[in-house]
Amino acid sequence: MPPVRALQLRLADYDGHRLQLAAPLEANINDKGCAFGGSLTSVMTLSAWALMSLKLEEAGLGCDVYVQDSHVRYLAPLYEDLLAEATLCPDQGWPDILDTLRTRGKARALLCVTIHDQSGQCCCTLEGRFVALRSRD
Amino acid sequence: MPPVRALQLRLADYDGHRLQLAAPLEANINDKGCAFGGSLTSVMTLSAWALMSLKLEEAGLGCDVYVQDSHVRYLAPLYEDLLAEATLCPDQGWPDILDTLRTRGKARALLCVTIHDQSGQCCCTLEGRFVALRSRD
Repeated sequence: MPPVRALQLRLADYDGHRLQLAAPLEANINDKGCAFGGSLTSVMTLSAWALMSLKLEEAGLGCDVYVQDSHVRYLAPLYEDLLAEATLCPDQGWPDILDTLRTRGKARALLCVTIHDQSGQCCCTLEGRFVALRSRD
Repeated sequence: MPPVRALQLRLADYDGHRLQLAAPLEANINDKGCAFGGSLTSVMTLSAWALMSLKLEEAGLGCDVYVQDSHVRYLAPLYEDLLAEATLCPDQGWPDILDTLRTRGKARALLCVTIHDQSGQCCCTLEGRFVALRSRD
């Protein structure tokens, strides 16, 4: 995928609940010397997509995962490498999502993503609704 | 800007009210053969940013323009080149925005962006709040 290659993404961490994707500032810099908004959104969207895809794969469910809508807040400029952390949003649970997917072949999940800088300041957040459609497997 | 170069953007049209940015599908394709969500969002965000920047420049106001938050809806997959069209959202007006900027040095604007395919189907929308800060000029 050329647009993802351009981000120079790498998987930084995954513990079964949280997934982190990292990308270098250099490949994602804007005219103001900080991270480009489009890259921030892409990395956040992909980290949520990757978390959901991995959870379903671990459960043995072959699915196509799509983003349906998302709300992004840009809170502060980021002058460092990008590190996005995705989790399920509060009051969402994987067991329910997997059950729905097994019985109905389709399920929605709300995922939350944040990018903090190294001082701990939150630079941007994404809340996104994702849909999984079971494929023939 | 490396992340923007990767999108292979070009200005397709600008009539003083609407601005269109285009990008080839080939550079922005995902694993499903349609346009990558991150690219759709980047192109939509940049088209709104470009429209606002151009309007302020035409008014002789040197500004930095930032996106503050945005809401994106992905409605249908796009299997064609990307063409995003940005306008001010309804009930927003450039004269008010320019006045606020002249008197307070800062103004917000809501911009709406859509991407349609060639059959006229709306594939995604963005509503974004942008902030302009007057620079010393």
